[in-house]
Amino acid sequence: MSWKRWLLGTPLETHRFSEERLGIPLALAVFSSDALSSVAYATEEILLYLSLAGVAALAYSLPISGAIVLIMAMVVASYRETVYAYPGGGGSYIVARENLGVLPGLVAAAALLIDYVLTVAVSAAAGVAALTSAVPALFTHRVAIGLLFLVLLVVGNLRGIRQSGAIFAAPTYLFIAAMATMLVTGIVRTAMGLPPVEPPPAAVPDPTQAVTLFLLMRAFSAGCAAMTGIEAVSNGIQAIKQPESRNAAVTLTIMGCILAFFFLGASYLAHAYVVVPGAGQTVISQLGRVVFGMGPMYYVLQGATALILMVAANTAFADFPRLTSILANDRFLPRQLANLGDRLVFSNGILILASSAGFLIIVFGGDTHKLIPLYAVGVFLAFTLSQAGMVMRQLRRRKSHFRLHAAVSATGACATGAALLVIAFTKFLQGAWIVILLIPLFVFAFLRTHRHYFFVRQQLSLREIEPERPIRHTAIVPVSAINRATIYALRYAKSIAHEVEAVHIAIDPHRAELIREQWKTWGGTVPLRILESQYRSVIGPLVDHIDDLMHGRRRNEMVTVVLPEFVTAHWWEGLFHNQSAFLIKGALLFRPGVVVTSVPFHFSR
Amino acid sequence: MSWKRWLLGTPLETHRFSEERLGIPLALAVFSSDALSSVAYATEEILLYLSLAGVAALAYSLPISGAIVLIMAMVVASYRETVYAYPGGGGSYIVARENLGVLPGLVAAAALLIDYVLTVAVSAAAGVAALTSAVPALFTHRVAIGLLFLVLLVVGNLRGIRQSGAIFAAPTYLFIAAMATMLVTGIVRTAMGLPPVEPPPAAVPDPTQAVTLFLLMRAFSAGCAAMTGIEAVSNGIQAIKQPESRNAAVTLTIMGCILAFFFLGASYLAHAYVVVPGAGQTVISQLGRVVFGMGPMYYVLQGATALILMVAANTAFADFPRLTSILANDRFLPRQLANLGDRLVFSNGILILASSAGFLIIVFGGDTHKLIPLYAVGVFLAFTLSQAGMVMRQLRRRKSHFRLHAAVSATGACATGAALLVIAFTKFLQGAWIVILLIPLFVFAFLRTHRHYFFVRQQLSLREIEPERPIRHTAIVPVSAINRATIYALRYAKSIAHEVEAVHIAIDPHRAELIREQWKTWGGTVPLRILESQYRSVIGPLVDHIDDLMHGRRRNEMVTVVLPEFVTAHWWEGLFHNQSAFLIKGALLFRPGVVVTSVPFHFSR
Repeated sequence: MSWKRWLLGTPLETHRFSEERLGIPLALAVFSSDALSSVAYATEEILLYLSLAGVAALAYSLPISGAIVLIMAMVVASYRETVYAYPGGGGSYIVARENLGVLPGLVAAAALLIDYVLTVAVSAAAGVAALTSAVPALFTHRVAIGLLFLVLLVVGNLRGIRQSGAIFAAPTYLFIAAMATMLVTGIVRTAMGLPPVEPPPAAVPDPTQAVTLFLLMRAFSAGCAAMTGIEAVSNGIQAIKQPESRNAAVTLTIMGCILAFFFLGASYLAHAYVVVPGAGQTVISQLGRVVFGMGPMYYVLQGATALILMVAANTAFADFPRLTSILANDRFLPRQLANLGDRLVFSNGILILASSAGFLIIVFGGDTHKLIPLYAVGVFLAFTLSQAGMVMRQLRRRKSHFRLHAAVSATGACATGAALLVIAFTKFLQGAWIVILLIPLFVFAFLRTHRHYFFVRQQLSLREIEPERPIRHTAIVPVSAINRATIYALRYAKSIAHEVEAVHIAIDPHRAELIREQWKTWGGTVPLRILESQYRSVIGPLVDHIDDLMHGRRRNEMVTVVLPEFVTAHWWEGLFHNQSAFLIKGALLFRPGVVVTSVPFHFSR
Repeated sequence: MSWKRWLLGTPLETHRFSEERLGIPLALAVFSSDALSSVAYATEEILLYLSLAGVAALAYSLPISGAIVLIMAMVVASYRETVYAYPGGGGSYIVARENLGVLPGLVAAAALLIDYVLTVAVSAAAGVAALTSAVPALFTHRVAIGLLFLVLLVVGNLRGIRQSGAIFAAPTYLFIAAMATMLVTGIVRTAMGLPPVEPPPAAVPDPTQAVTLFLLMRAFSAGCAAMTGIEAVSNGIQAIKQPESRNAAVTLTIMGCILAFFFLGASYLAHAYVVVPGAGQTVISQLGRVVFGMGPMYYVLQGATALILMVAANTAFADFPRLTSILANDRFLPRQLANLGDRLVFSNGILILASSAGFLIIVFGGDTHKLIPLYAVGVFLAFTLSQAGMVMRQLRRRKSHFRLHAAVSATGACATGAALLVIAFTKFLQGAWIVILLIPLFVFAFLRTHRHYFFVRQQLSLREIEPERPIRHTAIVPVSAINRATIYALRYAKSIAHEVEAVHIAIDPHRAELIREQWKTWGGTVPLRILESQYRSVIGPLVDHIDDLMHGRRRNEMVTVVLPEFVTAHWWEGLFHNQSAFLIKGALLFRPGVVVTSVPFHFSR
């Protein structure tokens, strides 16, 4: 396993789990990347829909971005409430479950899990788009590059987030710097009336439809993808330095301000320079060329965009396994998801997230535009439930200024709830139906899992356990040939049971006769029973015989089937031997009171 | 398993294996189909190469076919010797092994196994070509149809050959009748100077090369594919009614005559009507249209061709598993291949053959022309070795007229040996290299397998087995929680060993404390040992502890690890439980003296 160690690092001791919390600069880098990076695709999606109605409709991108920024402000304000109320981690699942009940909690959890997968898929696709805008030759390999992107994230996350945090701070700040430079330069240039350094490549296509309310709603819905990731701070609050709540609130506010500036700035510049999606380039790439020309600054901008999208995907790699482990601890998901791996990360969750996102990238051909319609439904549902939960909490607790706090949360809840309806309505046919269908299926699976663990607990309970009686034990040794392995199995059987019986299933009568003869020498005191097999099956007659033995047994009577098992020096040599032990075990697994044991016989070569 | 019964029939009792042998008419149907059906592609392959040199070169098809028929006559004569010498089954492997030695025998076996796979793939591809010639709409689905073809053969053969024999007689005789009618009608029409009913569709392309010796050799090599299958009679002789040898010899002779007529007739007609491969049709299909027009007789001919090719593939389904079972009984292949399934057929061999042929059909896109270059190398190698073996046998035994008999075999051996050199030389770059590479690899694998079984036999020998001493037995019960399953496992452990020890691997110190507390109530006399696990691994500390226990043990000291195993009512519920038992078993498998037993705990729902 040395390559595993080299790739993932040596195991970490358990007590190191709580070490190394993040200060505000690092927390901003880790938790705001998802929201900030969405500038790379959200503005573009707005323009994509508006451009259907021609160049004049592009003017609507500013008010739409403004509306999104407004909702964002409400959500940020509302989540500031959450981080103060839940300094121990206030993900939507926890808040909704505690204040609204189990079912709303599970709905929020299902919605979030789906959106985490989409965050990874969309960020990977958009990151690849940033790369292929700068290097068009890579375009045909975008699915492969997207998957490579995932592999890097998996390795980074299996090593552990604390080391990753530092690695991922640089790209976030590089992106903030590059994007701010681009926007400020662009705004100054337009204010001074300077022409673009390089003219925008894509001509606006002729309008194919009028500016309808539905079109504006679609553009708004598409832009709402920008808001995913705001909840990241409240989820990951335990990774932030104390005082967690205050630091988290500050992080949230800074993030909101930067995002509003980026979002409005990009919309303004796209409008000013008449930039629309197309020509094999992202809108940000086109803006970069318009403002900087094809110089080094342009490449820095594209590189930083690709890198921050990777960091954004990484946010989901922190949140998804954390949520699945919480759900697993609450017995809504299999318990394996609750376990910390040997690098103190939830390895199973990381792998499930990466493979689901990889599946989406392959199915949707790594195309951001095709993935976006599935996106944001889940997050807005979780937002709404979480904030509604906060309203309930404040109304119940009635602390000082509770009316004001409840009003902040309620405003957020109403805004996101309204946005959710718009998103679900306008994106339904394009893909949102998949998510709307999956959420109840997930909730159903959570409940079934919970029920299973409930029954298991009941049946494993020690209440009314029968008093111990000594077990009456019969060992059965199936014999297909008399050799060293058989003799060892027989000796083992004699050591574990008082009654031992050898059984030969006769497929070939000559062989049966030979074994009967040899048994006189080697069998000792153990009786040999020969069972006929008309149809050359070994399993059938053996199972029938054991059923006869067990018929009418008492609870303290057991049968152990002792089989010799050949352990070969090389795995492929195992192919040279019948896997009867495996089949016998499978056939007897569901018979109470029957245990199948194999005694390994080791071949030295 | 009721669907399996419905598809494959109920199990057959062992004593029915020798029932129902085939008379000459059925034997001819079963064993000659491979050779006869090759008219469907062999003539076409000859013409394909000749047509490269233009229309004048097509005249060479008659002498080339004549040369092939001549070699065929020598091979038939030589195999008549074999069926008299080996009435119990004289496949090339047996004859070569017995008279030339183990290595030539294995080379023959490898060559034949490869060619059986190719017989299936080529026959399936050619059968599909016969269908798509008549119904061009099916052409795009040819790989799928080829695979369907294989599935039907697998089902038929898993049911058993005796029933299949009767089913497959009809198509063979239908083909013989349809083909004979077509050839006779065509020959009569050309003799009377009548024009074609429908003109041949494909124009002869302009010559791209001259008639060289190499071109003629390539055409000859391609046509040699017609000869595969002649050895089928000598392999399957035990399925023929007594007197087997005489009946087999008669079958061989009839087959040779029919094949010679078909082969020469088809070449003559193709030459007379200037028919060349192409236009999405096989040559036989073009001849059928030329002679019959697009009437019912044409469709009967195409249907019969497709059906006999299926029967031809079926020959390999009888021979391949028979040969693998002989090799397995001689310990050159895994023993599983020696076993008769519950329908008295060698199920494993049938499945391996079908999947290998399916693989070839997929890789070569179901195209006969691409498969042919791999074909015939194996069979001619096996022919040559087998006949050389017969020469040795006759020279050693010196029975009456042995010189004459040896001369017959020697002539056959020389003819096929020369043909083999021509085939290997002319087809090498087009695909024969694959076969020439595979044969030594197969032989190497046979020898390695044999060596493995030799070592196994040695190590399983009862010689010098230590005298029995009572086993000193310690049972270890890993405890992760105290529940009913743990208690049952503990009771089981107490029933099989005098010393029992419970072990808890402490990942969470609180949990460890809880278990230590509960143990006072439930542990009874069994001591509990708590092992620390710094890196949250259960396996590591347990294995280390067992290694400590086993350190310096004597040969009669053993450790049995007793694990509770959760058996859930539905298989998918198994996903809800850690598969630690499996991992523990894997980790301890290679430690001598350690047995891992799981005690099933059954959940009722």
